[in-house]
Amino acid sequence: MNKGISKAVIRRMPRYYRYLGELLENGVERISSGELSERMQVTASQIRQDLNNFGGFGQQGYGYNVQFLYDEIGKILGLTEVHNVALFGVGNLGQAIANYVSFEKLPFHMIGLFDVDEKKKGRIVSGIPVMMLDEFEDFNRTHRVDIAVLTLPKDAAMPVAEHLVDLGVRAFWNFAHVDLKVPKGVVVENVHLSESLMQLSYNMTGR
Amino acid sequence: MNKGISKAVIRRMPRYYRYLGELLENGVERISSGELSERMQVTASQIRQDLNNFGGFGQQGYGYNVQFLYDEIGKILGLTEVHNVALFGVGNLGQAIANYVSFEKLPFHMIGLFDVDEKKKGRIVSGIPVMMLDEFEDFNRTHRVDIAVLTLPKDAAMPVAEHLVDLGVRAFWNFAHVDLKVPKGVVVENVHLSESLMQLSYNMTGR
Repeated sequence: MNKGISKAVIRRMPRYYRYLGELLENGVERISSGELSERMQVTASQIRQDLNNFGGFGQQGYGYNVQFLYDEIGKILGLTEVHNVALFGVGNLGQAIANYVSFEKLPFHMIGLFDVDEKKKGRIVSGIPVMMLDEFEDFNRTHRVDIAVLTLPKDAAMPVAEHLVDLGVRAFWNFAHVDLKVPKGVVVENVHLSESLMQLSYNMTGR
Repeated sequence: MNKGISKAVIRRMPRYYRYLGELLENGVERISSGELSERMQVTASQIRQDLNNFGGFGQQGYGYNVQFLYDEIGKILGLTEVHNVALFGVGNLGQAIANYVSFEKLPFHMIGLFDVDEKKKGRIVSGIPVMMLDEFEDFNRTHRVDIAVLTLPKDAAMPVAEHLVDLGVRAFWNFAHVDLKVPKGVVVENVHLSESLMQLSYNMTGR
């Protein structure tokens, strides 16, 4: 479905999806690339090029059908099926991310929270009781976990990831400050907060 | 100092900084581009090219002096001075980010937490009492705030950012799902968590 689309285009898709979602919320049914361009601060020709990758959604003199485009981009981004998510490391950040995932209107479903600290066992976070890491193997037999969120100290992240890969987990959303080494076919998306802060600090020096 | 260095190189710098920091922690004084390449999973020639942008740190047959390189990259990233940080929106994510910034060994100093919910006033988060947003103007007269963290609902982010820009804030670390429109000279670094999740979901479909 998405073969031949460049990484740069794909990286821009979530932003289109967000804008189109806002248009839908506001009851907008169609939009020209010019209007979309003004809202998104991207050139109209960039928008046309990007969206042409997904077939001719736009029509001369009509513009884009917002719902149709939203749905098509959603399909491309894999948002038409629910992804079950389990989170590992229920500290401050872990709790925040658990709440975040639960309250977002995206098809990511937080189904399990795991930690190694016995004191956290049974504590309710975002409506889910915290389990111990050694309970995950059983849990994963009865619940299909699609994505593991790692909100762990960096030294713990790699061993836990290896363990989870052994148990069949194939996707990681990694907040630990470490580059996970995973086998082929396993995907990792990193959120390295400290690197983002450094990028900001760099941009501040250039002003 | 950093003129003429491409954005792509700059984007890789925080990662070099992290690896070099780990080497220092482990007492490594020098490293060849080959060894660094193996650890970082980047080609040795990429590393040489990247680091050549900052002058000839590497010496044939010696490799890189880890401390020197770490310090130089730190200077480039603006990490040699302390940045005062204030955070706006003390919800779950805000609290997690406040703790995160406070516990990182980076020169970002969390000095104020602001919210509009009276019930949160005076609550201690990460050692700092929460203040009300309307107290920020006075606070900022006596404390120089360099960076504002926005962990706010998307509808609140833009008005708060405008207010802060009026009061002299020139850098934003934005977690709200909105593209901030700011005047020239004001820098924004976004952490759009939902877009990161969508990227992961996309990569899962391609396997």
